[in-house]
Amino acid sequence: MTATQPGGVEPFDAVDVIRAKRDGARVPEDALRWMVDAFTRGYVADAQMAAFAMAVLLNGMDRDEIRVMTEAMIASGERMSFADLGKPTVDKHSTGGVGDKITLPLAPLVASFGVAVPQLSGRGLGHTGGTLDKLESIPGWRAALSNDEMLAQLRDGGAVICAAGVGLAPADKRLYALRDVTGTVEAIPLIASSIMSKKIAEGTDALVLDVKFGSGAFMKDFERARELAQTMVALGTDSGVRTTALLTSMETPLGLAIGNANEVRESVEVLAGGGPADVVELTVALAREMLALAGRPDADVEAALRDGRAMDTWRRMIRAQGGDPDAPLPAPVETHTVLAPRDGFVTRMAAYEFGVGAWRLGAGRARAEDAVLPSAGIDLHVKPGDRVAAGQPLFTLGGPDDTRFARALEALEGAWDVGDDAPGDAALVRERIAA
Amino acid sequence: MTATQPGGVEPFDAVDVIRAKRDGARVPEDALRWMVDAFTRGYVADAQMAAFAMAVLLNGMDRDEIRVMTEAMIASGERMSFADLGKPTVDKHSTGGVGDKITLPLAPLVASFGVAVPQLSGRGLGHTGGTLDKLESIPGWRAALSNDEMLAQLRDGGAVICAAGVGLAPADKRLYALRDVTGTVEAIPLIASSIMSKKIAEGTDALVLDVKFGSGAFMKDFERARELAQTMVALGTDSGVRTTALLTSMETPLGLAIGNANEVRESVEVLAGGGPADVVELTVALAREMLALAGRPDADVEAALRDGRAMDTWRRMIRAQGGDPDAPLPAPVETHTVLAPRDGFVTRMAAYEFGVGAWRLGAGRARAEDAVLPSAGIDLHVKPGDRVAAGQPLFTLGGPDDTRFARALEALEGAWDVGDDAPGDAALVRERIAA
Repeated sequence: MTATQPGGVEPFDAVDVIRAKRDGARVPEDALRWMVDAFTRGYVADAQMAAFAMAVLLNGMDRDEIRVMTEAMIASGERMSFADLGKPTVDKHSTGGVGDKITLPLAPLVASFGVAVPQLSGRGLGHTGGTLDKLESIPGWRAALSNDEMLAQLRDGGAVICAAGVGLAPADKRLYALRDVTGTVEAIPLIASSIMSKKIAEGTDALVLDVKFGSGAFMKDFERARELAQTMVALGTDSGVRTTALLTSMETPLGLAIGNANEVRESVEVLAGGGPADVVELTVALAREMLALAGRPDADVEAALRDGRAMDTWRRMIRAQGGDPDAPLPAPVETHTVLAPRDGFVTRMAAYEFGVGAWRLGAGRARAEDAVLPSAGIDLHVKPGDRVAAGQPLFTLGGPDDTRFARALEALEGAWDVGDDAPGDAALVRERIAA
Repeated sequence: MTATQPGGVEPFDAVDVIRAKRDGARVPEDALRWMVDAFTRGYVADAQMAAFAMAVLLNGMDRDEIRVMTEAMIASGERMSFADLGKPTVDKHSTGGVGDKITLPLAPLVASFGVAVPQLSGRGLGHTGGTLDKLESIPGWRAALSNDEMLAQLRDGGAVICAAGVGLAPADKRLYALRDVTGTVEAIPLIASSIMSKKIAEGTDALVLDVKFGSGAFMKDFERARELAQTMVALGTDSGVRTTALLTSMETPLGLAIGNANEVRESVEVLAGGGPADVVELTVALAREMLALAGRPDADVEAALRDGRAMDTWRRMIRAQGGDPDAPLPAPVETHTVLAPRDGFVTRMAAYEFGVGAWRLGAGRARAEDAVLPSAGIDLHVKPGDRVAAGQPLFTLGGPDDTRFARALEALEGAWDVGDDAPGDAALVRERIAA
């Protein structure tokens, strides 16, 4: 608290930086770099950074400030490089959704065209699942790789999905933990610099962003999601990473599986040329974006799903990390199925509530140190737009026991409807943002 | 940082409270009381309160929220009561200015009419002086009194100026220290609740606020000062303390003395029926407000200055706290006088710069633990509007030695002007705010 008293040898004063942003001014570049660095060193107090973050949330940052903020976070840690791989690298980042297993089929699909796909991923917190949690339901699979192991896998197999090392953008880790407890998570400049600092530090040549909007997304509002996408595309471009974004709907869970093992199962169906239409559509759309950025705009993505090339890459990728692609996945011991109360059309299955339901079943965690239950989750039997008859199964809760079903059903109360009229078709991929 | 994780038994979550204010909503009464209480207990982290304070600064608080915030800060500590004194109590609070010694003549003046005046005061920080610092230049005088000593003095002499006990509104002390380092001092709801929580906890029946605006004031802008005055008058009224406010100009230092011992000397001149016109005007205006609130609207204030009643009360008050009203006050050893460079009118003497000049001479402190130099300060020989001849003394710097004169003169560079035309008269008391 007394860290910024006069008499120190620091070139700036945190209070001046906070005041500038509070009063709607631009923070000068050197002052902003200092602020992030001094915060990482512990010289700028949490309370000061929290006040600054709230001022950023309410008053915004311009494009240059966001770039400087991002560069300062990158400078707080190590930078990786894939320059020696001899092939283009392209990464994908999703802002998170319910049933969003797209990384699983997508990474091997894109890699099957000779492109390196380094997917440094995270674990889930709250109602959206984490890619590593899903993959950990595969017996033997491990998320932690050394940098050398990761590079070897990119060279040999092309795709790797693993845990991000602690050395990338440590300032972001510290700042994110602070934002989480101070109501400042939702600031677009801070979200953008948080996501992009890690992706740029990772050293990818190109990046495709899947920015979600709707009930199950972090950004409920389409316009805000678009603003975030534009901000991140500009930021990637300014930092020399070719970046595009798709704005995709998260009103309804993606696919039919919400959980961990069941999402792996659905991903494997997609890799086998099947799978739910929406998962296939989004996987293909993102793969095309990634391959276009990697210089392969004409790659026949659907063919690679049909002819087993993507599946081969998947199996190699899982084996390389100790997993057995043929081992049976954990399955629920107890289930509970919810039936249609009447004839009609499924008009709504709200992503957020289904996400919370799966979370309460144990598919997600409330605290970073909690474990997830691999077999817990929800399987949908129908989707909005489908016609159902009274008594037909709508969805099934599953888990190792039934102790969590009541709380999950509570979350799902009012989360779905069966009505007389089929709902209108809403596009899954709503808009594309390029530099 | 993990204080508000799920699983606790606390009735609210700090993040929800922060978010409500961030999004422009009213914070529910019980949640706001909890926030202040939990912050005082250390359960709500500094970072959380800092983010909340920034949200309050940028999004405001309504009248009810400010009242609840104030009540919560009062509830964090002890409340005093003057109910047993058998006479009305009335206090004055100034938001702080340069040369503002008004409390010194005012408290004994009002007390000389049989009204109790409990002036719990503070020390100066930055360019505005502190009442206790000024009085401590009187040999023997001590600021610290027990509650019993204070009550005895109010009973016998009627006026007491002493240090506020640490038991009043400790939440405010903690919050103020936090605001000071997080760029959130300037939030009107927080300024108002900070000032008023201490005054209401002190237990006065009535309160007159001297809210200053202009270069030397905390609030530079008249409209902001008016908003603060209106907020505090509403808050006092809502809390059962009869409150009025005068909005007074702080463009020019008050009186001719800026410092400590020299301000006591000037105050004694006023108590002797003399003194600079502006100090007398403001002392009389505030005394009339205080006496009106104490049920003595017709008290002849000027008479009490002329006939020595106010002086008698002063001498009794100083003696009761160990001071010798007849002892010589510390005087500067070294002086430096600035002369008029030409014939003309003094058109400007900027309060802020003169305040900073006196501060640099040693009359004020940069850190709470610093001591002040009683003899250091600036004596004005003329005021804006006065006609001067080339070579006539404008003001004199003084102190125990001349080591600080250069830095003080630097602050005073460009702070005053002599021009051809007399400046227009600006009213010292610009507006009165009542409930």
